[in-house]
Amino acid sequence: MGGAAASVSAAESPQAAGAAARDVTRRLAAWAVSSRKEDVPAAIRREALRTVLNWTACALGGSRHETVEIAIRAVKPFSGPEQASVLGRKDRLDVLNAALVNGISSHVFDFDDTDLRTVVHPAAPVAPALLALAEHRLLSGGEFLHALIVGVEVECRIANAVYPQHYDIGWHITGTVGPFGAAAAVGKMLGLSEQQMVWALGLAATQPVGLREMFGTMTKSFHPGRAAQNGLMAAFLARQNFTSSDQPIEALRGWANVLSTARHYGEITDKLSEQYQIAYNSYKPFPCGVVIHPAIDGALQLRAEHHLSAGRIDRIELQVHPLVFELTGRKAPRTGLEGKFSVYHAVAAAIIYGRVGEPEFGDQAVRDPSVVALRERVGASVDAAIREDQVRIGILLKDGRRLDKFIEHAIGSAQNPMTDAQLEAKFHGLAEGVLPPDRVNRLIDFCWKLEQAADAAQLARLAAASV
Amino acid sequence: MGGAAASVSAAESPQAAGAAARDVTRRLAAWAVSSRKEDVPAAIRREALRTVLNWTACALGGSRHETVEIAIRAVKPFSGPEQASVLGRKDRLDVLNAALVNGISSHVFDFDDTDLRTVVHPAAPVAPALLALAEHRLLSGGEFLHALIVGVEVECRIANAVYPQHYDIGWHITGTVGPFGAAAAVGKMLGLSEQQMVWALGLAATQPVGLREMFGTMTKSFHPGRAAQNGLMAAFLARQNFTSSDQPIEALRGWANVLSTARHYGEITDKLSEQYQIAYNSYKPFPCGVVIHPAIDGALQLRAEHHLSAGRIDRIELQVHPLVFELTGRKAPRTGLEGKFSVYHAVAAAIIYGRVGEPEFGDQAVRDPSVVALRERVGASVDAAIREDQVRIGILLKDGRRLDKFIEHAIGSAQNPMTDAQLEAKFHGLAEGVLPPDRVNRLIDFCWKLEQAADAAQLARLAAASV
Repeated sequence: MGGAAASVSAAESPQAAGAAARDVTRRLAAWAVSSRKEDVPAAIRREALRTVLNWTACALGGSRHETVEIAIRAVKPFSGPEQASVLGRKDRLDVLNAALVNGISSHVFDFDDTDLRTVVHPAAPVAPALLALAEHRLLSGGEFLHALIVGVEVECRIANAVYPQHYDIGWHITGTVGPFGAAAAVGKMLGLSEQQMVWALGLAATQPVGLREMFGTMTKSFHPGRAAQNGLMAAFLARQNFTSSDQPIEALRGWANVLSTARHYGEITDKLSEQYQIAYNSYKPFPCGVVIHPAIDGALQLRAEHHLSAGRIDRIELQVHPLVFELTGRKAPRTGLEGKFSVYHAVAAAIIYGRVGEPEFGDQAVRDPSVVALRERVGASVDAAIREDQVRIGILLKDGRRLDKFIEHAIGSAQNPMTDAQLEAKFHGLAEGVLPPDRVNRLIDFCWKLEQAADAAQLARLAAASV
Repeated sequence: MGGAAASVSAAESPQAAGAAARDVTRRLAAWAVSSRKEDVPAAIRREALRTVLNWTACALGGSRHETVEIAIRAVKPFSGPEQASVLGRKDRLDVLNAALVNGISSHVFDFDDTDLRTVVHPAAPVAPALLALAEHRLLSGGEFLHALIVGVEVECRIANAVYPQHYDIGWHITGTVGPFGAAAAVGKMLGLSEQQMVWALGLAATQPVGLREMFGTMTKSFHPGRAAQNGLMAAFLARQNFTSSDQPIEALRGWANVLSTARHYGEITDKLSEQYQIAYNSYKPFPCGVVIHPAIDGALQLRAEHHLSAGRIDRIELQVHPLVFELTGRKAPRTGLEGKFSVYHAVAAAIIYGRVGEPEFGDQAVRDPSVVALRERVGASVDAAIREDQVRIGILLKDGRRLDKFIEHAIGSAQNPMTDAQLEAKFHGLAEGVLPPDRVNRLIDFCWKLEQAADAAQLARLAAASV
């Protein structure tokens, strides 16, 4: 919190904002309750389908992670009826616990979707809550998609209102706005009244999850999982008329004043139904911090264009944005996790393996002698003119030639989003070894055609491992 | 948050505190893990028994409240095996959900124990977590009591470190420190290692519950219930080696820096095993804010001493602390809940009924014509020389006499705690109509002899309604 509060302008002071924006929660709730799926533009619905596809892929990919194994072991003795699937596994849990576990698995590789305006991962708290409940209460694919759009809208708007100050204080914003998103989505699905929706948002406001201090531990991916559960709990209680504040976001002691040093309520209430936040969603091509993505992109492109193999390479020279050094400057990583913070490893792995997925950030890859040998011949220097989504990469071959590439906008950035085909390739990579190939194809097909499905829960059933 | 951060002294700045106090969480965890019940002084264990007795009474009294009914209805479809009792009811839920509901019922009347140094309600998040798990895993009464003492110690010390700033920001401190208390108590019961206990506290830190904005709604009593669940979840995960931060409380982005503008780590680590926080626990004689307690106490004493009835009284004059006017100055309450904020109603009810429990703050009592008639003859004036736990009360009789009483320390205050007999009377009042009288007597007896019990869960079984 520190001294940041001292610099808050009058317009942002708690009292002024509270008085000026008395109906913030109610207006957002009214929108969520009244939104109709027919009114959502086709491009927005298409982006939501891409979000579902990407989220499902990430949940499958993370489903065998130790973090997930442990979470299941911890909750199973207390879990209720086998109402919902754990994606990529045989386990079935009650709705609330399935949401927790699927929320964890979809975030554990840090490979899930990212809102470009904040650093919220929109799907991880919302999709698991909705999907688990869809297995318990019939929901069409179209309704599912619409509820997801509503949930993402609510959480991202609230995030926009307090970003970056709220994040700077130390809150993991995905876990703190996630309960709002899950509550709104589930509330929409349950047909809450406006008053009940206000209360659901109140119950969400009072259950924020997540300190950034937990980054680098298993608890990070616990955050969206718990946020999903908190949103479900909020909606379930509100549906039974469990009362809460009528101004949980904007009151003097409401969420925005207590958890942030600044707040811009217009971000929550302006242009509802006109601008949809899911339009700003992005998908990562590589399971690591975005700052290394340009370098990986450049290395993969040069490799493909010139059919490169490590044996032909003398050395690799990178000119990068300063953040690349600051965040991923580790010269000699010892573990897979450390490899995610080494631009040198990432580029070497790209050349050696021709792809950079989770296995290429495994302990084995980081210790692979051919990767280590190439890594030591990668150099990097900072160029202040290089933007965050850019890189200049030069590869000097043993035959004396030099190959150069300037990446203007890395794949996955706002200006160069992943194509549908690239998302499908990512899906195949993550689902490999988790589900049989024919099942993967059916699942991808189901995602694209979700709006025509009579039963959204078929997604969960297809994504559950039968063996 | 407001401008409070600006006044933080250098010694309290996040960086300085972080550097000076690197092992706060580990030292607290090490103490919790190594504490032995034989080392706890008899007077402390006695106070813990009083805490258990009072908490059980409150949970029974609240067990039929609408807030509890709704919560059970909301969670029941998802609840796991019938592992644990809901006190005062026939319902059985899984451990986590039983803890939620018992946490709600024990706080719903605002009648539970209060830490005198902060305004934490120590038992409400800790006792429900422990008791629910005790029904699932055998635990002796002595171990139960010791784990409760450990949990209360941990939560109250963390509260002391950030009070009052953390509360002033807008956090409901019972819900934000409650997860630490429940995690420590359950972790102690499960025999966590020191490292696991650190992680459990980390998982608790990342799940704070409760904005003060929720006061006056059902969500207020949800806070300790959810805190109990969060503590259980934290301990269950940590037991399986789910990793978390090693410095969740004191890190730069840890709980104390993110959720408070000031922090005093000595309150957490000084004099462990020497000063026990449960020694500062207090019990309310009346189910309303403590500021009216002196007036009720005085009215009840004069009534008893002079066998007063309303018909003999001309008028009543109170001289009170300024806060009494500020918080409870409602002249004509219309509902029971409003009656809790009316010193006039409270004094009139004391004279009419001779007791002031939950029924005397019911809608019916507030509208009782005899109460209304007397209430209109109660006057109050502020006297700056009157302390918070004092009152001067004068009753003018119709026969011209005047009866005066000065309450030096109201019943339930630090200097005049409720006696064991008064706690038993409170228990009888709250359990009336919930359990049969002979069962109530057995339960009170079991509480006092808890340390000799081979199975602590007998408490839950005796407190469950068989009909």
